[in-house]
Amino acid sequence: MLERLPGFRDFYPEDCARRDFIFRVWTEAARRHGFRRYDIPTLEPLELFTEKSGPEIVGQLFNFTDKGGREVALRPELTPSLARMVGARVATLKKPVKWFNIAENFRYEKPQEGRLRSHYQLNCDIFGEPGPAADAELMAVCLACLRGFGLGPEDFALRLSDRTLWSLLLEALGIAGDKAMEVLGIVDKFERTPREETLKRLEPHFGDAREDFLGQVETLMGLREIEEMGAFMRSLAPNAAIREKIEARLGMWRELLEALDAMDLTSFVRIDLGIVRGLAYYTGFVFEVFKLAPAGAGYVGRALAGGGRYDHLVGKLGFPATEAVGFGMGDVTMAQFLEEKKQLPPIIEAPDVYVVAAREGERRAALGLVSRLRAAGIRTEYALRAPGFGKQFRLAGQSGARLAVVVGTDELAAGNVRIKDLGSGGETLVPLAGAPGAARDALAGGIASA
Amino acid sequence: MLERLPGFRDFYPEDCARRDFIFRVWTEAARRHGFRRYDIPTLEPLELFTEKSGPEIVGQLFNFTDKGGREVALRPELTPSLARMVGARVATLKKPVKWFNIAENFRYEKPQEGRLRSHYQLNCDIFGEPGPAADAELMAVCLACLRGFGLGPEDFALRLSDRTLWSLLLEALGIAGDKAMEVLGIVDKFERTPREETLKRLEPHFGDAREDFLGQVETLMGLREIEEMGAFMRSLAPNAAIREKIEARLGMWRELLEALDAMDLTSFVRIDLGIVRGLAYYTGFVFEVFKLAPAGAGYVGRALAGGGRYDHLVGKLGFPATEAVGFGMGDVTMAQFLEEKKQLPPIIEAPDVYVVAAREGERRAALGLVSRLRAAGIRTEYALRAPGFGKQFRLAGQSGARLAVVVGTDELAAGNVRIKDLGSGGETLVPLAGAPGAARDALAGGIASA
Repeated sequence: MLERLPGFRDFYPEDCARRDFIFRVWTEAARRHGFRRYDIPTLEPLELFTEKSGPEIVGQLFNFTDKGGREVALRPELTPSLARMVGARVATLKKPVKWFNIAENFRYEKPQEGRLRSHYQLNCDIFGEPGPAADAELMAVCLACLRGFGLGPEDFALRLSDRTLWSLLLEALGIAGDKAMEVLGIVDKFERTPREETLKRLEPHFGDAREDFLGQVETLMGLREIEEMGAFMRSLAPNAAIREKIEARLGMWRELLEALDAMDLTSFVRIDLGIVRGLAYYTGFVFEVFKLAPAGAGYVGRALAGGGRYDHLVGKLGFPATEAVGFGMGDVTMAQFLEEKKQLPPIIEAPDVYVVAAREGERRAALGLVSRLRAAGIRTEYALRAPGFGKQFRLAGQSGARLAVVVGTDELAAGNVRIKDLGSGGETLVPLAGAPGAARDALAGGIASA
Repeated sequence: MLERLPGFRDFYPEDCARRDFIFRVWTEAARRHGFRRYDIPTLEPLELFTEKSGPEIVGQLFNFTDKGGREVALRPELTPSLARMVGARVATLKKPVKWFNIAENFRYEKPQEGRLRSHYQLNCDIFGEPGPAADAELMAVCLACLRGFGLGPEDFALRLSDRTLWSLLLEALGIAGDKAMEVLGIVDKFERTPREETLKRLEPHFGDAREDFLGQVETLMGLREIEEMGAFMRSLAPNAAIREKIEARLGMWRELLEALDAMDLTSFVRIDLGIVRGLAYYTGFVFEVFKLAPAGAGYVGRALAGGGRYDHLVGKLGFPATEAVGFGMGDVTMAQFLEEKKQLPPIIEAPDVYVVAAREGERRAALGLVSRLRAAGIRTEYALRAPGFGKQFRLAGQSGARLAVVVGTDELAAGNVRIKDLGSGGETLVPLAGAPGAARDALAGGIASA
């Protein structure tokens, strides 16, 4: 039982470099968009998660009673902790708050393709801005986190939906409150459920009108233009009050789409009310990003990212109400996607310089040079065990270093060392004292072969 | 109970930036020394830790039974998992293996000054090299991780000791095996224990000779030169076999000190057998790093770092025996130290560019420009809510951005935008299409005031 637990990963250096490459692209995209990194505890009070997601979530958690009798859980997600952090300082934080984080999340569930018990997730969130400009900004950074890998609109699409519009549809049909949430839950699973089964689930809510309702759902899900959606919604509205709400919401849609278009993101975005996102806490625009099958054959696999507006969560946790939008993007699905697309570059983790000492007598000078090269910021390796000269040269070549610095007997006697470009084969003799500077120049410009 | 748990930390962006600065200095030092990053699971089988440290450790762990009935624990340290990773691939990994990691560790203990229930630790380890060259290399990277903050030999010292020499002393006095481990445990606590109490603890092992033994311990701990230590050890050796072992070990010491001197590290290193490091698994040279009180007044506070040789651990976990040296360095004590020394720089997380749109009519062009600036790798901010021109300029100033790019009505009509250096006040008019390039140039060189 010294093996690691099922659903957890060891990261050997080559795995770690690949993971860190993904993290680096995400981090750079987030920073370019003005997001600042925060971090939260790995272990939290269990109640923080049940408060947001209900007691059902406990079945999916690594939870336990700690030695102080506290009910605690490894975080399954970041959002509740983040909402607490923002809520606790909401009066003094400058709005909009734009924060990001990359952190490990834990879920106790059956490990399967693309789903582990521990995975890393990027989260970007914006607090304190109610308008669609924040939604557009969030989608921009989400798309940049994929585009940073060299992926384009032929590779993935953002499916854009709206919980408010769904609520208005239900309101137009006279369905509200808890019942509306239940019906939305059925609609959410529509794509993955046989039609007959969906009809059966709708029966308690709609009775004989269930087929009509499902027809309306299918129509709405099939529309790809906001003005078409508007016309359809208007046709269902029973009174002027609801029509006004629909018009107001369409205004938000136009504002959002205009901002996305101004940022040249339209080619990535598909209006698609087929996305509902099950979680009860979403309140407005919601979206999911999927990879595209070749030749327009549709979406494949699990969502690469998902998010939306959740204006009620901070208030629900007992803090002043604060508007919020956010998304998450996981490392497991992303790494699979990048491998398929051959967008995971070979990760080279080689030293810049390998120092070779001719004989034991030059060992001391070589160690001193290693130390000075490193102090100059140069990644420097050498053979700890000091084998023969030829062996050291082979090790230098195998290390992937770009330069060898050779501390030879005769050269050292004259106060010099030899810098050899292991790519071109060119070499140059430089004073020992000036070797770090000369190595830096050679790394920048190379040394021509003689 | 939505508050975070005691001993855990929320990292607001300014805290996170400070923490990440420490991580960055560590990472750069490790990479300059040829170490590659790995990572391990946060949750591990409990047995992995009890196998290394004995069942006593359970009292200090966050451990529980998971939903699959497994006994598991949040990792209190990285070394056992690392030993498992190296052990599992020991036949194919190229030696020496030089790996580093920065990761969160968890201990259930009373939170106190410099000791939390969760802290981050840098670990650097070298596997597969038995000689003192590996110990010297490890100390070099450890010292570089402190020197990278601008700290020098007046700020901290590495206290260098040797478990092998302690074992030889005990062997010379006829003490071996479990009894030797128990006595070393007493010696380890000598500095923090009243002398009378130490004598009492030594009584079961030495009887009336306890005062003699303690005198020998005190003598050895007071020596600061390896040749003096050698003479003292020789004077206690009862036979030639032990004298030979002592001579062999002194040879290792000379080799180590010669390497440290060649790397110009002698000013940081103090020979000091007062360091024993309690953990049973150390087998050779051991060291701890302490901050220094001003004016040579000795060591203060908890160890900043500690480590040493542990050649038996990989084998003990059931893998082929593999030599190992490693150290750990924690973020909490390090951050305290850096604050005292005023070596934590103010962390500026400002955008490069703030885009200001004159009026709603310029909003579309401004958003397009924001998008292109970000695509060019420039950290770009703008007001999501598009307030008045003057307010936007104030926001630009408050953001800390170095440049404002102003999308003005008349300028835009002529296809231009204005780039303003918020430091010098200088500005320049550039074509909208070329604005990202012009902004990059202005960020590199500034714009002179008119």
